[in-house]
Amino acid sequence: MIYLSDHIEHTALKQGMTEINIRDNLELCYEYSIPVIVIPPSFVKYTASVVRQGISVCTVIGFPLGYNTTETKVCEIRNAIDNGAQEIDLVIDNSLIKGNAWTELDERLGLYRKACEGKILKIIVETSLLTRQELDNTADSLAKNGVDFIKTSTGFVGEGAKTEDIKFLKDYYGHALKIKASGGIKTKAQVIELLEAGADRIGTSSTKQVMEN
Amino acid sequence: MIYLSDHIEHTALKQGMTEINIRDNLELCYEYSIPVIVIPPSFVKYTASVVRQGISVCTVIGFPLGYNTTETKVCEIRNAIDNGAQEIDLVIDNSLIKGNAWTELDERLGLYRKACEGKILKIIVETSLLTRQELDNTADSLAKNGVDFIKTSTGFVGEGAKTEDIKFLKDYYGHALKIKASGGIKTKAQVIELLEAGADRIGTSSTKQVMEN
Repeated sequence: MIYLSDHIEHTALKQGMTEINIRDNLELCYEYSIPVIVIPPSFVKYTASVVRQGISVCTVIGFPLGYNTTETKVCEIRNAIDNGAQEIDLVIDNSLIKGNAWTELDERLGLYRKACEGKILKIIVETSLLTRQELDNTADSLAKNGVDFIKTSTGFVGEGAKTEDIKFLKDYYGHALKIKASGGIKTKAQVIELLEAGADRIGTSSTKQVMEN
Repeated sequence: MIYLSDHIEHTALKQGMTEINIRDNLELCYEYSIPVIVIPPSFVKYTASVVRQGISVCTVIGFPLGYNTTETKVCEIRNAIDNGAQEIDLVIDNSLIKGNAWTELDERLGLYRKACEGKILKIIVETSLLTRQELDNTADSLAKNGVDFIKTSTGFVGEGAKTEDIKFLKDYYGHALKIKASGGIKTKAQVIELLEAGADRIGTSSTKQVMEN
C-alpha cells in the first residue's frame, strides 16, 4: 500500500507571505504527516527555527526563471544552508539547454553539487518547455553529476508535470535519478497517476485537497 | 515635443534566450534609438561586451518574486555590477510590506543603495498588489533611502502599471523619486497615457509595436 503523504512535498511559494502564513502551512504538514515543506529563501531561517523534528525544510534557488548567474546561485545555496535548509530545489538556466551548452551545464552542476554537499539537491528543468532530446541530454547531465532528483516544473512557467515525461525519465534514468513531479498538481487522482508513472515525490500546494478527496 | 524613444527601456526577460536573441534585441534598440536594455543577470557580461556606446545595460535582481534573502540580493547586485550592469531593477520583498516591517524595509534599502553606489537603482514594488496606504508607506521609504526610481511591476505577477498609481506617485513623490511604469504595456497609446500621468520611463518588451503604431 502506498501512503500518499510519504511522497508529498508541501509547497508554499506565493509572494507576500508572512510568518503567520508559514505557521499555517506547517500546521497543515503536521496534520497530514507531510515530510517536506518547500518555502521561499527569505523564510528558511524562520521556518527552521520553528519546525517540528521530522519535517525537512526545502527551499528554491534561482526561482522561478533560473537565469541568475552561477555565482549568485552558489551564494544563494550557501545562504540557504547556513539558514537551515536541508533540501535545495534549483532552477537550471534553460538558456544552456536551448543553446546546447552541455559542457557548461556539466560544469555548473558540479559547482551546485559541491555547494549542496550533504544536502538533497533537486534540479528543476521545466520539462514542458523541452524537446524529448533536450530532456534526455539534460537528465543525462544531472545523473552524471550526482544530482539527487530531477524536478519537472516551477509551477510559474509552462504546463507542469506530464505523465509521459515521468514515464520516460523513470524508464531511462530511474536507476540514477529520483523524480519529483510538480506544477499544476491539484488532485489525488493526479498524484496517484504520477506516482504510478514513476514519480518518487510530488510537489503541490494543494496538499489539503489531495489528502482529503 | 516628447520623443517616446527617450523614455523607453527595452525589456527582454524571457526564460531560455540565447546570445542570438540578445543580439536581436540590441539591434532593435539601435533601430529605434532606445537608451536602455533590460536583460537577465546571466546575460549582463555578454551584453556589456557587445553593446554599442550610448545604451545602458540594466538587469533585474531577485526577479520576479523578490523573496530572496538580503544576502543573496546584495551578492547578485555586486555580481551584476562586476559584469557591467549600469542600472539595477530590484524586486523588493512584498512580505515586508504585507507584514508592516517598515524599519526592516529601510535597513534593506540602505544596503541595496550602498551596494549599487554610483549606479541607477530602481525598486520594483508590484503596485497592483498593494493598497494605497501600503504604496504610500513604501514610496516614502524609497524616497528616504535615496532610491532613484520606483518601478511599478515585474510583468510576471499581478496586473502591471495603472495610470491612477502613476498619478498618485507623481503628485506625492515626484519631487523625490522618478517613476518607471512597467507590466503589460503594449501600445503607443498606453505609453503616452502613462508618460502624461507622470511616468519618467516605460519598461516594455513591445518596443517595436509601440514605436511603429
